[in-house]
Amino acid sequence: MTVYAFGHKNPDSDTVCAAISLAYLKNKLGVETTAVTQGAISPETSFILDRYGLAIPEVKNSFAGESVFLVDTSDISQLPDDLSDAEVLGIVDHHKLGDVTTSNPLECWIWPVGCSCTILKAMYDFYNIEVPKEIAGIMLCAILSDTVIFKSATCTDKDKEFAVELARIAEEKDLQALGMEMFKVKSAIQGTPIRELVERDYKDFDMNGNKVGIGQLEVVDLSLLDEIKDALASDIIALKKVGDRHSVFLMLTDIMKEGTELLIASDDPSIVEKAFGCAPAGNKVWLDGVMSRKKQVVPNLEKAFA
Amino acid sequence: MTVYAFGHKNPDSDTVCAAISLAYLKNKLGVETTAVTQGAISPETSFILDRYGLAIPEVKNSFAGESVFLVDTSDISQLPDDLSDAEVLGIVDHHKLGDVTTSNPLECWIWPVGCSCTILKAMYDFYNIEVPKEIAGIMLCAILSDTVIFKSATCTDKDKEFAVELARIAEEKDLQALGMEMFKVKSAIQGTPIRELVERDYKDFDMNGNKVGIGQLEVVDLSLLDEIKDALASDIIALKKVGDRHSVFLMLTDIMKEGTELLIASDDPSIVEKAFGCAPAGNKVWLDGVMSRKKQVVPNLEKAFA
Repeated sequence: MTVYAFGHKNPDSDTVCAAISLAYLKNKLGVETTAVTQGAISPETSFILDRYGLAIPEVKNSFAGESVFLVDTSDISQLPDDLSDAEVLGIVDHHKLGDVTTSNPLECWIWPVGCSCTILKAMYDFYNIEVPKEIAGIMLCAILSDTVIFKSATCTDKDKEFAVELARIAEEKDLQALGMEMFKVKSAIQGTPIRELVERDYKDFDMNGNKVGIGQLEVVDLSLLDEIKDALASDIIALKKVGDRHSVFLMLTDIMKEGTELLIASDDPSIVEKAFGCAPAGNKVWLDGVMSRKKQVVPNLEKAFA
Repeated sequence: MTVYAFGHKNPDSDTVCAAISLAYLKNKLGVETTAVTQGAISPETSFILDRYGLAIPEVKNSFAGESVFLVDTSDISQLPDDLSDAEVLGIVDHHKLGDVTTSNPLECWIWPVGCSCTILKAMYDFYNIEVPKEIAGIMLCAILSDTVIFKSATCTDKDKEFAVELARIAEEKDLQALGMEMFKVKSAIQGTPIRELVERDYKDFDMNGNKVGIGQLEVVDLSLLDEIKDALASDIIALKKVGDRHSVFLMLTDIMKEGTELLIASDDPSIVEKAFGCAPAGNKVWLDGVMSRKKQVVPNLEKAFA
């Protein structure tokens, strides 16, 4: 019986690439493991898998009675509903420690680095397993994506060091160009329904008993979103209502200007000033230097809600 | 301001030695860190620190406003009451994943091996920090203690491999003799109050809403306990009452015969047969081959209580 490796809902590139890379490693170590996702992959992830000739993992949402490895999250709210009926064998993650618990000892590699795939590279080294070219390619792209080409506040020296090693194996010469090509795919919005854009990289959090949703769109130039900004603002109001949420925030992150315009739909918009120290103008606010949901937005909002 | 490294209540040798070893490593990496304990150390730990000339860490029970590393547990019930007012920077552990959560990314090394100090050895290797002789000695002893000289069901190849490396650094030639010397110290019970023996290595667990205490005494020969067994049995009945517990179990583990006599004080003694498949005779039962609370006793009891 195979073990399954997967990450959070609304899979991003790191979640998908980490699941595939962990499955490859575990198979090499004699544990039959299959990478799956909890939902359809993004255009960026599709670009990455296509570039290195890897298949898209199947979608699987139920794991009762199965054994699983989790990647890129340890939050129950971001995992399948029946996870408590599965045996969690391990977690590879670079976020805060969530509320998953287990009955048995397990293998957790959770480090404060920019990307789960950076930790995966350390695991390959630890177990002395060679990283094949195509796996090195997707791990590298995941690092470039999660660290916004090494610019995010979450990026560490380990991310850079391992990215360079992976680039050598993957025979990628120009990381800046590869990253920009990827972010152009990510920035592409033509023909995509508004709700799909809002939910492309979206997560719900429990903040002191309040349900708070935070989405993020990263673009190479914020002006790309000018025409649809009003529609996005309306849509997060709708999303807040249907989910009985206290707030929904949408981060419009400009990876070149290195900042975020935060769109706000909230029962109490003053929470934004409390969290970030700058007052919203209408339903939005510019947060200079803010690029990371995990390191810059979630902790500040959690403190403001506390 | 220093960071504190510490482990669970009723500190055993692994908790104390892992805290000291982690503090040394973090200091080398530029993070000022102080090892402390949550309570007095055991005679075995005292023997270990004395052998390698290391000081006994201070006792500290309150950490509000401090930054901390946890070792050897991630269960809130085994940690200080005000832990939620501290910032958890990392966890090094080899148990099931407990209910500690954080607001920020952190560094977790949690592996299914026999001893936290085995993981510490891997961390020294990862960070390329040389293990000094005295630290190698206490890490080695912690491994010998937690794995019952490599005999416990929790012992893995990594524990053995790293113990041999540490023994070389510590210049320890005969691990079996060192282990037996340590376990003789651990077995010494003369003059020790009964309650102190019961609580020497004791942990409370929440099993499906029931408070269940499990203590363990490891001895080189069960007959050493003949004279005090009745007193131990009476004392766990008293301990069950004062703490409003569903059950208190005391494992009397014979490390040479490789099995455990389980003393039972329970609102529902039939839970023992449900968990282990053998019926107690009176208030006790012999569990052949059972030496590990974590791997053999806790999971079976949790299933029986589920």
